Amino acid sequence: MEDIVSLCKRRGFVFQSSEIYGGFASCYDYGPLGVELKRNIKNAWWRSMVQERDDIVGIETSILMHPKVWEASGHVATFNDPLVDCKTCKGRFRADHLEHIPCPMKPSKMAGQAEPCDLTEARAFNLMFKTTVGPVEKEDESNIAYLRPETAQGMFVNFANVLTTARKKLPFGIAQMGTSFRNEITPGNFIFRTREFEQMELEFFCYPDTAAEWHEKWIDIRYQWYLDLGVRRENLSIRKHEWDELSHYARDPRGTGTVDLEYKFPFLDKPGELEGVANRVDHDLTQHAKHSGQKLTFFDPQTNEHVVPFVIEPAAGVGRNMLVFMIDAYHEEEVKPGDTRVVLKFHPQIAPIKVAVLPLLKKRDDIVNVCQQLTKDLKKKTAAVYDDTAAIGKLYRRQDEVGTPYCITVDVETVEKDNAVTVRDRDTMQQERVALDQVQNYVLDKLGV
Amino acid sequence: MEDIVSLCKRRGFVFQSSEIYGGFASCYDYGPLGVELKRNIKNAWWRSMVQERDDIVGIETSILMHPKVWEASGHVATFNDPLVDCKTCKGRFRADHLEHIPCPMKPSKMAGQAEPCDLTEARAFNLMFKTTVGPVEKEDESNIAYLRPETAQGMFVNFANVLTTARKKLPFGIAQMGTSFRNEITPGNFIFRTREFEQMELEFFCYPDTAAEWHEKWIDIRYQWYLDLGVRRENLSIRKHEWDELSHYARDPRGTGTVDLEYKFPFLDKPGELEGVANRVDHDLTQHAKHSGQKLTFFDPQTNEHVVPFVIEPAAGVGRNMLVFMIDAYHEEEVKPGDTRVVLKFHPQIAPIKVAVLPLLKKRDDIVNVCQQLTKDLKKKTAAVYDDTAAIGKLYRRQDEVGTPYCITVDVETVEKDNAVTVRDRDTMQQERVALDQVQNYVLDKLGV
Repeated sequence: MEDIVSLCKRRGFVFQSSEIYGGFASCYDYGPLGVELKRNIKNAWWRSMVQERDDIVGIETSILMHPKVWEASGHVATFNDPLVDCKTCKGRFRADHLEHIPCPMKPSKMAGQAEPCDLTEARAFNLMFKTTVGPVEKEDESNIAYLRPETAQGMFVNFANVLTTARKKLPFGIAQMGTSFRNEITPGNFIFRTREFEQMELEFFCYPDTAAEWHEKWIDIRYQWYLDLGVRRENLSIRKHEWDELSHYARDPRGTGTVDLEYKFPFLDKPGELEGVANRVDHDLTQHAKHSGQKLTFFDPQTNEHVVPFVIEPAAGVGRNMLVFMIDAYHEEEVKPGDTRVVLKFHPQIAPIKVAVLPLLKKRDDIVNVCQQLTKDLKKKTAAVYDDTAAIGKLYRRQDEVGTPYCITVDVETVEKDNAVTVRDRDTMQQERVALDQVQNYVLDKLGV
Repeated sequence: MEDIVSLCKRRGFVFQSSEIYGGFASCYDYGPLGVELKRNIKNAWWRSMVQERDDIVGIETSILMHPKVWEASGHVATFNDPLVDCKTCKGRFRADHLEHIPCPMKPSKMAGQAEPCDLTEARAFNLMFKTTVGPVEKEDESNIAYLRPETAQGMFVNFANVLTTARKKLPFGIAQMGTSFRNEITPGNFIFRTREFEQMELEFFCYPDTAAEWHEKWIDIRYQWYLDLGVRRENLSIRKHEWDELSHYARDPRGTGTVDLEYKFPFLDKPGELEGVANRVDHDLTQHAKHSGQKLTFFDPQTNEHVVPFVIEPAAGVGRNMLVFMIDAYHEEEVKPGDTRVVLKFHPQIAPIKVAVLPLLKKRDDIVNVCQQLTKDLKKKTAAVYDDTAAIGKLYRRQDEVGTPYCITVDVETVEKDNAVTVRDRDTMQQERVALDQVQNYVLDKLGV
């Protein structure tokens, strides 16, 4: 794991937020390669969830919403972590993660050790960030707003708007990608759990008697999505939540609870959540109908009845997704005795750079000119880069380390003899000679994207 | 303008945030068509600014940043609007927008009128939203955080990280798209000015003696981008900021100020800002170097000197961009006497739906089957929809109204005679007969995307 964190920083995938000021609050920034990887993951999700389907439409709702949204959803009352204080050192901890925490203010007689903290009773600490809106000095009921802790409620409060404008019938889904915030007491493990994070959520509305079946279907679809993008089957698993893990809406006896797709994260002692697929029953629509006084139902023209749909919700985090794609793609390979390469074996669809164009000799203008024209042409169609800042062996290793599927090398033969270039495959390291005027189509075909 | 707002709501481009609770705080949600339009605008920007260029890389930084970032940038001290209160009705107003505001508590003797408000002296009101981070009950210096009012500072504090990891030399740029927040006292005009908004910003770092030239270049590049995406030249203009409009960083005598690309918004009495192109000189890097103690310079290997680059910043808002593309594309055309159509003449690259597949008779299974197979195939390559919920004339009008460049109609002839379909052009309304097995390539070629 340290290797991956170090690679992320060294090659510009992930930086600590506000690093020059010592970092901040478990927030992270995505560098030049990280942002492309993230965009590719999000685009792959959007393509499979929205663009290629008939029954799902996308929306994007605001981060700041009416505070009544969070009263209705139950977040104001129940979105809490239990918190305890140490009466001596004033430290704060999550009561459910607690063992014997040493108190720095209570040194024991044994050197280098400390006695445990002297803890208060646990009390509820709400995880929503609060702010105030409008020209006001003091927080009061009329001006308070929360930073959304999930994108889901944006879909529920727009249920009627989407139903009408997109002319949808049950079953249909609303998908959204966007930033959410949770004031976690104990964030951590790099980008696994952060206070600011991006979600990819689908709310799939269906007839109540089909919800169990759709729950199964969505678990399968989402599991297959990770496999299709190259995540190794042996690192994935599926686990149903125990009763005491379930969110308030998932405890409904009419529902089928929550199922996690899990991944073998190297820093956890058992598989951890990669994506949750929850059956939220009719909890959210019913609550919003009650609190807003609006009708949030689907009118079934066949039975002439108003139906409150059940909702199946596959919900993933973009940062955690990215971490899984990085960990799963990471390989150290002994190329020959004593010579190891690091290679990220990304699926071409998510690789941040698809093809690198490299000159064998950067002092030869004719070679460099061919490279630059080729890069320019490739950039119109895919993510291509030119690099001449090292010798060819080192350039290949650099591209391996960031997961570039193909390198194209232009050499003396290209310009003096055969008008062909060398294409190198990241995974096999095999090289092939391809005519210069064919190489774009050759590589784009291989990429399949 | 009312026609556009109404179209936005009716067809699912833009909804009021939290509408079922009466809306909220001048925030907006983007519906199924709005989110696709927005994605297309953002992708067009990213493609032209990052993907197709050698000298710009992208990043995505967090919304919550270290509070020292905003002290260094000057936002804590100077990002204010002047605010006045009415002593009688307690209303709050921007002092610089003030005329005679009627006070509801001071009815005049004339029916339906009121006397002016009784105003306090103006005082500074900071436009940054505040929150607190971590398990704390009260706001104090150690836990305060701001929601970023611009994405720009995320690029400046990552200057050194990007310089190192992306191996860039001057001139080079860092681009970012992301959400920012400003607690405007008087937001308004639909999505023209909102408290939560998405930005597309480029910080272009260059040698100080080339900044004036780059400033000109970026004004040209950005102006051309709007033209290339179909915005009509007669609605665009360019205007240099007057001294009293300039931000603190743009008043530096070594710089060239700020230039706005303006658009003729129908609700303003003169052209309004579409995008600002500012010369921020070395203000931000210098301030962050001072406040963080870090070295934020470029080492020039030719002169052996450390250079603090100047920065040219083209900064646009996604929502405002979308509004311009909607307004500019909006046409009402008299098709024949007494018959008017509404058509959004979007450039194909930004049209939310590229092609609609329509059955002439939805009761014929053979026709519907052809339509659905064609839609499915098209969806793998572009944004395609199938619609059978009205007669063909009405279906065409619906697609015109949302700017779909091409409609493909499958009729009885298709399945019984010629195995061909009708392709209708949105702008000319001309129809052409194309072989079914050719129609995908035919339309994708015409779209050119």
